[in-house]
Amino acid sequence: MIRNKKNPPVVSGPSDQPVPGLMDRRTLLSFGAAAGTAAAGLLGGSAARAANPDNLPPHVPEWSQNLGVGVEDAPYGQPSEFESEVVRRNVSWLTATTESSVNFTPLHALDGIITPNGLCFERHHGGVAIIDPEDHRFMIHGLVERPLIFTMRDLKRFPRISRFYFLECAANGGMEWRGAQLNSCQFAHGMVHCVQYSGVSLRAILESAGLKANAKWLLAEGADASGMNRTIPLDKALDDCMIAFSMNGEALRPEQGYPLRLVVPGFEGNMWVKWLRRIEVGDQPWHTREETSKYTDLLADGRARRFTWAMDAKSVITSPCPENPVLHKGHNVITGLAWSGRGRIRRVDISMDGGRNWTAARLEAPVLPMCLTRFYHEWEWRGDSVLLESRALDETGYVQPTIEELRNVRGTNSIYHNNRIQTWLVNANGEVENVQVS
Amino acid sequence: MIRNKKNPPVVSGPSDQPVPGLMDRRTLLSFGAAAGTAAAGLLGGSAARAANPDNLPPHVPEWSQNLGVGVEDAPYGQPSEFESEVVRRNVSWLTATTESSVNFTPLHALDGIITPNGLCFERHHGGVAIIDPEDHRFMIHGLVERPLIFTMRDLKRFPRISRFYFLECAANGGMEWRGAQLNSCQFAHGMVHCVQYSGVSLRAILESAGLKANAKWLLAEGADASGMNRTIPLDKALDDCMIAFSMNGEALRPEQGYPLRLVVPGFEGNMWVKWLRRIEVGDQPWHTREETSKYTDLLADGRARRFTWAMDAKSVITSPCPENPVLHKGHNVITGLAWSGRGRIRRVDISMDGGRNWTAARLEAPVLPMCLTRFYHEWEWRGDSVLLESRALDETGYVQPTIEELRNVRGTNSIYHNNRIQTWLVNANGEVENVQVS
Repeated sequence: MIRNKKNPPVVSGPSDQPVPGLMDRRTLLSFGAAAGTAAAGLLGGSAARAANPDNLPPHVPEWSQNLGVGVEDAPYGQPSEFESEVVRRNVSWLTATTESSVNFTPLHALDGIITPNGLCFERHHGGVAIIDPEDHRFMIHGLVERPLIFTMRDLKRFPRISRFYFLECAANGGMEWRGAQLNSCQFAHGMVHCVQYSGVSLRAILESAGLKANAKWLLAEGADASGMNRTIPLDKALDDCMIAFSMNGEALRPEQGYPLRLVVPGFEGNMWVKWLRRIEVGDQPWHTREETSKYTDLLADGRARRFTWAMDAKSVITSPCPENPVLHKGHNVITGLAWSGRGRIRRVDISMDGGRNWTAARLEAPVLPMCLTRFYHEWEWRGDSVLLESRALDETGYVQPTIEELRNVRGTNSIYHNNRIQTWLVNANGEVENVQVS
Repeated sequence: MIRNKKNPPVVSGPSDQPVPGLMDRRTLLSFGAAAGTAAAGLLGGSAARAANPDNLPPHVPEWSQNLGVGVEDAPYGQPSEFESEVVRRNVSWLTATTESSVNFTPLHALDGIITPNGLCFERHHGGVAIIDPEDHRFMIHGLVERPLIFTMRDLKRFPRISRFYFLECAANGGMEWRGAQLNSCQFAHGMVHCVQYSGVSLRAILESAGLKANAKWLLAEGADASGMNRTIPLDKALDDCMIAFSMNGEALRPEQGYPLRLVVPGFEGNMWVKWLRRIEVGDQPWHTREETSKYTDLLADGRARRFTWAMDAKSVITSPCPENPVLHKGHNVITGLAWSGRGRIRRVDISMDGGRNWTAARLEAPVLPMCLTRFYHEWEWRGDSVLLESRALDETGYVQPTIEELRNVRGTNSIYHNNRIQTWLVNANGEVENVQVS
């Protein structure tokens, strides 16, 4: 490694004070109105410093003076050592064992809509099954004309598709039902990720086995020690479900179901059975443990909702957030993610005052159905305390609710399907807190 | 790790003979015509075996019997141990030093359009600069009103954008100019990758410095030991160039220019200056080494073309290919990638007879400009010898040429910009060879 602590960087001076004053109102307005086209003078002399080559220290960094690291054969590349804090993280007190546990995607450190495979959150019920793909088999049986068993090679001979989808655990934000618990974007929202899956349509597989006339439900089951199983409605299976063997181009990661995972676009992550070993076709739902005592919404009167599959529209501002304090007065970028299990995101609104006034954010293309959508919003911060919120609207007309609206319908017993509007309090010193305003 | 070599998998029998006979013509036709919607009976009883649960060996795999690997805190996830061959690879004899060398993306092992960051090919001229982002500075000077120096934090306050782009080295396939040299999809085509970049528009940065009236050209220069520098035309810079700090969501990888890289959509990879430290604005091109003695096309008469920036439309079949032999008669999936530096891919054609007859492949959405496009084509192989080709057409009407067409214009001195149609010879035993048919 080449560090350069003895030789300071070529520019010195008051560069990164926590909250320097930077821009006057007039500059900001012209900038905000012409973002990306006419930002002349934006940072001149303050955020960026005027360059004066004649006055620079007479040295260049060591990394410009010495040869760097050579190309190696057969490397699988790794992140920079300076990014070692950008990792999945767990909460040690949350689960009794590591095999049935969870860690969280570092959403606050990411941009765009792709989650790198190494950072996709994990949720296991019996630990990660380590499976040799040559030995893996997938069976389809039950109410079919021809029960079939497939090798991985067999599956790769079916017509192939590739699709971008988000996957969100139904319990994402579950700890936030009764109030703001976790002062962290990663922990309060990080059970979601988004990759491009490649594989085959479940419809093609089902049709190769031949569905019987009374086929109406499927049971999908994993080959892990928990034998994770969930009921899938046949309509959904025939509509857009996939059997995936790749994510972001390469083979699935072990913790994401290598070598085979069910993809159930827009539905809660628990249904996306990993290490998929069989699908049984039936005429009734199975009501397994994971869709009765778990992964149902417990209402105020003690009854639970049956089958709450789709993840409703949701959004979160990933910067600023508790991990990303505001470091400068003047111009800042607000950015975040929005998604809906019912289709495309149509709009994301931003509020600076806890939900009284809203302005539409800029959605980055492509806006794909049941996929994360990245939004950006340019913002001038004057150093005042701000209640920052985002609110997603999807193409069905659904609007992301407040926690109050959710509680009015479902009480306070719920854990799953908490798609409330997140409020971040930006304090006058730039630090950001997770708060609930209602 | 839990392997299961003592206990064989639950299904035995002749599962993966290299070239089993599978499907009759009638089945194939109905399948091909209704791909993804009505493939009933496709694999029944042959590629997949009829499941007979009563007749299965009385055991289940160890990975279903024992708890798997628990969730760890702070992991950056890695690929399965069974995918250890899916890595970037280099050619030891190709370059004199490792610091000015190259390795190749394993295109044959990938699907979809995203290249995982750990598999994006590398090309360095002075090794990988290891840069602490806190110490990195980016300067803009020359024909500007206000020369400026930026920290990474400064840049992150500009309006943010995220875009999917391919990056191809101008020398990709360079060794193939005189004939089929490398019996490998990875080595013959693997100097291309595709990720989503996040950063700021170069236009916004230039406008913050204020362009002088005679500004017409830029020089972009890296902070690595080679001080890599290239001339960029101002029109392109103002059109769609980016200064990127993220790829596929996370920070750039060190070998891809961490913490800052120039993105020049559709143009040759050498211009996408890594470890970007300065942009100088001028009124003339610089004609640096890397755009005169290197990265120009040497014609038959000894003269070189000046400035061949855009990567013309190209495609390659990534399976089958030398690394992916055909393992079965009957139904197989042909898949590959197409791209154009001049916009969107409009169509990809497939030939089975070395270019005499062509059929359109299926393009997977989204088809984005200057981005890889994934294509699929369902195919029945009868066990005969086949000359397999793909041919890309882009939205400008440009058609990917044969090597003969390229040689007619440019002779045989060229190295760069070899976007010839690739021919794979599928032999009767299923093995695949790199050949040139003209």
